[in-house]
Amino acid sequence: MSAASLTELMGIDLPVIQAPMAGVQGSALAIAVSEAGGLGSLPAAMLGDDALRKELAAIRAATSRPFNVNFFAHQPPVPDAARDAGWRQALRPYYAEFGANEADIPQGPGRRPFSAEVAEVIEAFRPPVISFHFGLPDEALLARVRSWGAKVLSSATTVAEARWLADRGVDAIIAQGLEAGGHRGLFLSDDVGTQVGLFALLPQIVREVRVPVIAAGGIADVQGVAAAQALGAAGVQVGTAYLLCPESTTSALHRAALRSEGAAETALTNVFSGRPARGIVNRAMRELGPISAVAPAFPLATAAIAPLRAKAEAAGSSDFSPLWSGQNASGCREVPAARLTRDLAAGWVASPASAGS
Amino acid sequence: MSAASLTELMGIDLPVIQAPMAGVQGSALAIAVSEAGGLGSLPAAMLGDDALRKELAAIRAATSRPFNVNFFAHQPPVPDAARDAGWRQALRPYYAEFGANEADIPQGPGRRPFSAEVAEVIEAFRPPVISFHFGLPDEALLARVRSWGAKVLSSATTVAEARWLADRGVDAIIAQGLEAGGHRGLFLSDDVGTQVGLFALLPQIVREVRVPVIAAGGIADVQGVAAAQALGAAGVQVGTAYLLCPESTTSALHRAALRSEGAAETALTNVFSGRPARGIVNRAMRELGPISAVAPAFPLATAAIAPLRAKAEAAGSSDFSPLWSGQNASGCREVPAARLTRDLAAGWVASPASAGS
Repeated sequence: MSAASLTELMGIDLPVIQAPMAGVQGSALAIAVSEAGGLGSLPAAMLGDDALRKELAAIRAATSRPFNVNFFAHQPPVPDAARDAGWRQALRPYYAEFGANEADIPQGPGRRPFSAEVAEVIEAFRPPVISFHFGLPDEALLARVRSWGAKVLSSATTVAEARWLADRGVDAIIAQGLEAGGHRGLFLSDDVGTQVGLFALLPQIVREVRVPVIAAGGIADVQGVAAAQALGAAGVQVGTAYLLCPESTTSALHRAALRSEGAAETALTNVFSGRPARGIVNRAMRELGPISAVAPAFPLATAAIAPLRAKAEAAGSSDFSPLWSGQNASGCREVPAARLTRDLAAGWVASPASAGS
Repeated sequence: MSAASLTELMGIDLPVIQAPMAGVQGSALAIAVSEAGGLGSLPAAMLGDDALRKELAAIRAATSRPFNVNFFAHQPPVPDAARDAGWRQALRPYYAEFGANEADIPQGPGRRPFSAEVAEVIEAFRPPVISFHFGLPDEALLARVRSWGAKVLSSATTVAEARWLADRGVDAIIAQGLEAGGHRGLFLSDDVGTQVGLFALLPQIVREVRVPVIAAGGIADVQGVAAAQALGAAGVQVGTAYLLCPESTTSALHRAALRSEGAAETALTNVFSGRPARGIVNRAMRELGPISAVAPAFPLATAAIAPLRAKAEAAGSSDFSPLWSGQNASGCREVPAARLTRDLAAGWVASPASAGS
């Protein structure tokens, strides 16, 4: 499947998708990338209805180009008071150390899965592309999204997940290599031992499915884009490299971590949310995990970490902040997102094969 | 660093190294690959002095081309009777099931690190290339190997390991992506969570060191070779794809596993040796690991598994056999190794840059 087919499918000029990254970007980054000819993405999982409407209105006001809105498709967890208490107990020494107060633990899950209510909110804005993480919502919700012509994407972390998504009719599949930052999209297994490096994952998914396959994980520069193309990708999704762009809302602490030597050391951790996600190793990951057996189910682990994160950040420390990053932060540059998008796209070789179909 | 410099450095025609794979190949595969213009490798860690001499003599008799001999550079473990007893206890239900006898557990470690004694054995054959796994032997041993002009290679699984190897003057570094089959070369940490996918590892090592970098892990076909080149590799090391070649001694059970759907599911396991190695998931890995906390230190875990493996294999089962494989077995083909070598090399684009220096 060629790049031409992906750009045609999405109505974009460049085969570069900016990865949705909840917590470190909003509409500004998405707008910049879409205006540059790539596909900008708005991460929506942590937005309430009003915030979501506001962000979508901002995008619609700023660009007539296609854009992507990303949602999580997880099963909401069953609250488990005992597990929650165990997690609070594990964190109690840190509460004491920072003078944090358990009364400050926020209520509610913090992240919500895609739902009929959310579909209602976004329908007025008719987002041209919707991407899901952790599988897909049910058939009725998918049909609703398609009713306004949206193209549907989702991430596969194994060949089996790619086959599952293809069987359900997604328009394109993101092959998320183990290298990728943030939450792993895995959904058919919760065993991180199943996760595959992009060099092995991408060509096997390309061989398995007939839809365009988008390469994600560890791609940071023109060489990475060229390598993904060589392995059969129809385009790339890049996240980490955008984290230093001025349009990102990456915190100063997170930016400093990305620029540091420590960025070479990442791990998969569940201590910030309850699901495995890749970030730069910090104190919380080292002392509580990186994979904790007592962290509550996704996304319930987040709440009890929040007061610690707030206290530590107020003291200038990122010890309890999720410092999401892929395994290759070497492409992070403090340049406008439009320029980064065009620079990445320059790695794509317009071959007769990719121009032809 | 270009491919020309690697082929010049090694005196080979094609920038393809056949990965040394102890237990599934001997001199025949190495000879076939070297004769085809690549660099064939003899895995020596499981060979006694006589067997090693015999294999080296066979290579010297069959080819005048350069070849590689591979050794492990681990610290010999301190025997730990309590741990060994714990491991035997964990295996006892399987001994009962298979009617195996603990008296049949072989003595000795089974694998030995490179040593002055081994150097004595190989010196007469003056192997042109020596590669090490798990770091490097001490300075005196390295000097001895260099005394007959051998080039020295070793594997890095992180950027820090690559820097460590470069500081010690290796001639080239193998960037072993997480995708690779068999033993992980990690040696500065024993935490498999540090392991990096090739897409992220390769370009960062290329940027870090001045010696040629050889890409390994998940490379199975011309597309993989082209992608490695795009990411800055000076050549590739390929293992899994050779496992079905007639010159390999891969068992019928192992071959069947590689051809099966199950080959898509690999994991890192320490149950077969005590160190993490990637293989196709089977019963021993599933029930005892894949990472067991009670497995003895490398290579002592192997001995107590051996009688179970023998009994199971005699009954036509690979439930207790190490089914080493990388995450991309899709390149395994039942073709002569010379042809596979040439086919892989066809993926290498002779660019002005790579031809020039």
